[in-house]
Amino acid sequence: MEKAATYDFIAEPFRCDLNGELMYSTLGNYMLNAADYHSAERGFGWKALKAENKAWVLSRLAIEMQNMPQPYEHFHITTWMEKTLRAFTYRHWAITGENNRLCGYATSVWAMIDLTTRQPADIFKIGDGKIRDYADENRGVPIDRASHVKIDKENLELLRETDIAYSDIDINNHVNSIKYIEHVMNVCPEISKRSKQIRRLEVAYATESHMTDRLRFYGKEEGERFCCVVMRVADGVEQEAVRCNISYKL
Amino acid sequence: MEKAATYDFIAEPFRCDLNGELMYSTLGNYMLNAADYHSAERGFGWKALKAENKAWVLSRLAIEMQNMPQPYEHFHITTWMEKTLRAFTYRHWAITGENNRLCGYATSVWAMIDLTTRQPADIFKIGDGKIRDYADENRGVPIDRASHVKIDKENLELLRETDIAYSDIDINNHVNSIKYIEHVMNVCPEISKRSKQIRRLEVAYATESHMTDRLRFYGKEEGERFCCVVMRVADGVEQEAVRCNISYKL
Repeated sequence: MEKAATYDFIAEPFRCDLNGELMYSTLGNYMLNAADYHSAERGFGWKALKAENKAWVLSRLAIEMQNMPQPYEHFHITTWMEKTLRAFTYRHWAITGENNRLCGYATSVWAMIDLTTRQPADIFKIGDGKIRDYADENRGVPIDRASHVKIDKENLELLRETDIAYSDIDINNHVNSIKYIEHVMNVCPEISKRSKQIRRLEVAYATESHMTDRLRFYGKEEGERFCCVVMRVADGVEQEAVRCNISYKL
Repeated sequence: MEKAATYDFIAEPFRCDLNGELMYSTLGNYMLNAADYHSAERGFGWKALKAENKAWVLSRLAIEMQNMPQPYEHFHITTWMEKTLRAFTYRHWAITGENNRLCGYATSVWAMIDLTTRQPADIFKIGDGKIRDYADENRGVPIDRASHVKIDKENLELLRETDIAYSDIDINNHVNSIKYIEHVMNVCPEISKRSKQIRRLEVAYATESHMTDRLRFYGKEEGERFCCVVMRVADGVEQEAVRCNISYKL
């Protein structure tokens, strides 16, 4: 089996925003689906891991789109792993549109957790470590790696506080990784006003959030970017859940 | 060209809820996409209407699922119009899973609006009324029609008030029809607690809501159902946007 795989999608018009561009949250979901199909076909998808009481969790993600798919555009997501270690897997995506038009790239870091302890698990223990056979160490992406997303927490403003809702929670019983992006874009003033376009979106996931938690979104504009820290509040205690940077096109 | 058309989808695991069932909001989006593909292939899709400064707007919708698609299930949405009049089109859907397993049915009423005046437009003026050739008057669905959704407004409780956010707005520059369903399910206590399953979901759309509005969700439990009225607040004035009934399985 090939190390990379390509999956086809359509930019459904009602998943496009007012500017006629596919929403980042929809693109993000498709990328996660492509990652899961790619993994499932190679024996380490969500279902195979679930049977061993394990799950993949997204640790870091960065997306840079030069051209977003347009309404009705048939587009393609190619995904592969550059490297996999015991604790982390480095996965990339290339997104192309019709006539091979380059849309953009994305890159990520994944960890595996034990579903009971929610603690990190050894990736090589799944399927006798065969996952290593699929890593393609010569194939990176031409965008910066997904960083830890450093945010200076001085002067962050509380932009929104909300209960976690039914639609935030996915099959893994925690707030869906992509839902955080949707929420952060919703509290970002320049995105809401549609006055800026996104050059790079970067997210670091620190802690899982659950149905009974609340989320607080602290953010600020800083030069040509929006920085946001999402805190989960459980039993009155605040804990960092997600850090996100949205860098604008100049 | 056939009067009905069938489109294939996959119940992506991360669009499934904690119970391992496809989310209604995701299903609703797929149904809208199927409706649009069906219309587009017959000359009256979103793009063709947009060129004439018109758009379809969903007026009423009812969904009854006996079996929700399960994670990774390949499922099929068949859609057709039973009838089309100058002011309204009656569209149905049948959803089937793998091995032809019946998943459920949905039914709807659509109007057409002029994009400048936002007032109703004459459906027969699109493409010389050829849309009538595709109506299949002998093909209904075995569930009750989508009603006006009558709700006794006594004793409704304000459950949530929220600004409209970037992710609520779709390419038609109003709150996406399916996003209301997501919001209503989020304020429904029995859905949030996952203590009830949905027998029938019914929505009536009264007025469009826009980015600068706020939304207020008034709801109550009434026997084996949850009733919700969504009010849009614009310039301090409340106006009914959506009425929704969620009937539970007994």
